[in-house]
Amino acid sequence: MFQPVYLDHNATTPLAPAALAAMLPWLDGLCGNASSRHEYGRRARQAVDEARQRVAAAVGAHPTEVLFTSGGSEANNLFIKGAAASLRPGLVGVSAVEHPCVLKPAAQLQRLGWQLHTLTVDAAGRVETDDYAALLAQRPGLLSVMLANNETGVVQDVAALAEAARGSGAWFHSDAVQAFGKLPLDFRALNAAGVHALTLSAHKIGGPKGAAALLVDKRVELQPQIAGGGHERGLRSGTENVAAIVAFGVAAELAAAGVAERAQRMRQLKNRLESGLTVIGARIFAVDAPRLPNTSYFAFADIDGETLVGKLDREGFAVASGAACSSANPEPSHVLRAMGVAPEIARGAVRVSLGEGNDEHEVEQFINALRATVGRLQGLTAMTV
Amino acid sequence: MFQPVYLDHNATTPLAPAALAAMLPWLDGLCGNASSRHEYGRRARQAVDEARQRVAAAVGAHPTEVLFTSGGSEANNLFIKGAAASLRPGLVGVSAVEHPCVLKPAAQLQRLGWQLHTLTVDAAGRVETDDYAALLAQRPGLLSVMLANNETGVVQDVAALAEAARGSGAWFHSDAVQAFGKLPLDFRALNAAGVHALTLSAHKIGGPKGAAALLVDKRVELQPQIAGGGHERGLRSGTENVAAIVAFGVAAELAAAGVAERAQRMRQLKNRLESGLTVIGARIFAVDAPRLPNTSYFAFADIDGETLVGKLDREGFAVASGAACSSANPEPSHVLRAMGVAPEIARGAVRVSLGEGNDEHEVEQFINALRATVGRLQGLTAMTV
Repeated sequence: MFQPVYLDHNATTPLAPAALAAMLPWLDGLCGNASSRHEYGRRARQAVDEARQRVAAAVGAHPTEVLFTSGGSEANNLFIKGAAASLRPGLVGVSAVEHPCVLKPAAQLQRLGWQLHTLTVDAAGRVETDDYAALLAQRPGLLSVMLANNETGVVQDVAALAEAARGSGAWFHSDAVQAFGKLPLDFRALNAAGVHALTLSAHKIGGPKGAAALLVDKRVELQPQIAGGGHERGLRSGTENVAAIVAFGVAAELAAAGVAERAQRMRQLKNRLESGLTVIGARIFAVDAPRLPNTSYFAFADIDGETLVGKLDREGFAVASGAACSSANPEPSHVLRAMGVAPEIARGAVRVSLGEGNDEHEVEQFINALRATVGRLQGLTAMTV
Repeated sequence: MFQPVYLDHNATTPLAPAALAAMLPWLDGLCGNASSRHEYGRRARQAVDEARQRVAAAVGAHPTEVLFTSGGSEANNLFIKGAAASLRPGLVGVSAVEHPCVLKPAAQLQRLGWQLHTLTVDAAGRVETDDYAALLAQRPGLLSVMLANNETGVVQDVAALAEAARGSGAWFHSDAVQAFGKLPLDFRALNAAGVHALTLSAHKIGGPKGAAALLVDKRVELQPQIAGGGHERGLRSGTENVAAIVAFGVAAELAAAGVAERAQRMRQLKNRLESGLTVIGARIFAVDAPRLPNTSYFAFADIDGETLVGKLDREGFAVASGAACSSANPEPSHVLRAMGVAPEIARGAVRVSLGEGNDEHEVEQFINALRATVGRLQGLTAMTV
């Protein structure tokens, strides 16, 4: 089977062999319902408890602070809507570059009487401090600013933003789905700075699709968004996906243990990639901001991103255009537009996100293929002028 | 490893070998994000689409009527809260014997200005027609009555209830999680009778935990409960759990194809079980109602259900007490209480739910172990009097 070089790790990652191995016994043979009070149920409960400890230990949290969900989107919705439901309607602030699964639940709050403040970002994609100060002065009830952006890789100084918000009385949440495994992550330290909740997702760190977590300070009162049998301390009902949760625990441990080495290796590969990109005339977005070590987001003048991704796919390279997580959406990236990038340039956006399987050879091959493809497309453009 | 006889299939089922086999290629190796526009993404999207067709075909629905969720609890919450959000607050009616993942979201609607009507049931666990008629006269906006009860196995005449509601203008939903695979299920026929939505769950029919579906008539306007990237026609965002969805498709096909034969085999086993139960003095609940072919719910005078389940577990039989899906909950079953069963009898409730792996020999063994255990416990009770 045709196996293109995979350069789209911010969209999803291959399941780590150790995570798969941990998962299989819970798929092959009988995996009990963790709520059942017999041998099969107790084994399942114990496996979920152990995974909870692993995830907690990987990010410096206490196991009782870990709420398992089915995915990062669910976890973000749980925090935004679940915390809002315990507060009097007020002001919710989110950055303009959040993932849609933060932006949309925040917008949904408006129907319940909340006001939405979308925080502006500068040309490098970082939250603008003036706008943030103005928001804090209005005493928001809820704040959500992501640790690292899925498209640009831009890292926000979430600890400083949370520190600044401490006096405001707001609950501060951060979507750490893209940061986990690529940057050191310490919930205890972030919590001390004023971060009350973090979202993690298994399938972005070598775990399976179907498991994620909201880490949440127990002072935050949440209303369940999936109400029912009372699982996850009554905050998220539904039979636990034991196999996926077990594998998430293993993946989280690996992600945390190898983070420094992985980040250094990714950074070297990314530097090599970006030297090549610069030589062939790419504009790299957010180069002036701290970015994830694995992510490059770029465009070429007069070349449509979708077209380029399609050509590269046929050449054997899997990369993303615009936001990879969103379904069919022909609009240029909301992240780039918030950074003030003109729509005609934003439409050219292509993202390379590196992962553990990638090496220098693949990066070289990719640059060569990109140079040739861009050359052909620019030739075509020149001819049609 | 100690492998007790599993008699708790209403709590969860072993993954069918064919479902596991279909799942593995999506775990071992790279499974793309189904929203990605490259080779890996397209393969994942195609697999999800095929699974949607399989699930739809298994229950007589159109693929566009299938919304995948992470579980039955999520699907029930999506319908109840998602449909309510598109309506003016009014009256919501649910039967008193619904699963908590219907009862609780319906109760949550009260905070949004809805009135909750909990439909009474008769001593056999069937919705009382007088109360239902009284509810319809008040023109409810939403109705939810399950096809079959997880504890008692009692089957409601959902088609007749929906027919009666047709003039009322209400959206009618039914939780079919326990019925699917045990009774023939035809969404097209139910939809024609006036049922607008059905909930299915993979792990109750030999599929994996982590996949389920809401089948929904497209006239019902739903608001997403997990908002974000716009997956599942914008009604349920989050990266698709490809492996689990693929396995759900296979399990749904098997569940539908074998239903008549399976139901007959289960009914024979259950009759054998219940003959034995009667001989040793059990009171079997809801014997006067149509019940699932695999479910027996019973109690012995003066014997605590939890205690009996614990003893049977040590003897090598995995059965449930009260509602197995709920987490730690010392209250007697709300289902039995709604049926008018005295709390001291309800506390004795034990559920046996048979599945494909069970045979006559296991049923005989179970009856023998139960007779001996009950005898010992009754002896102890007699001594303490």
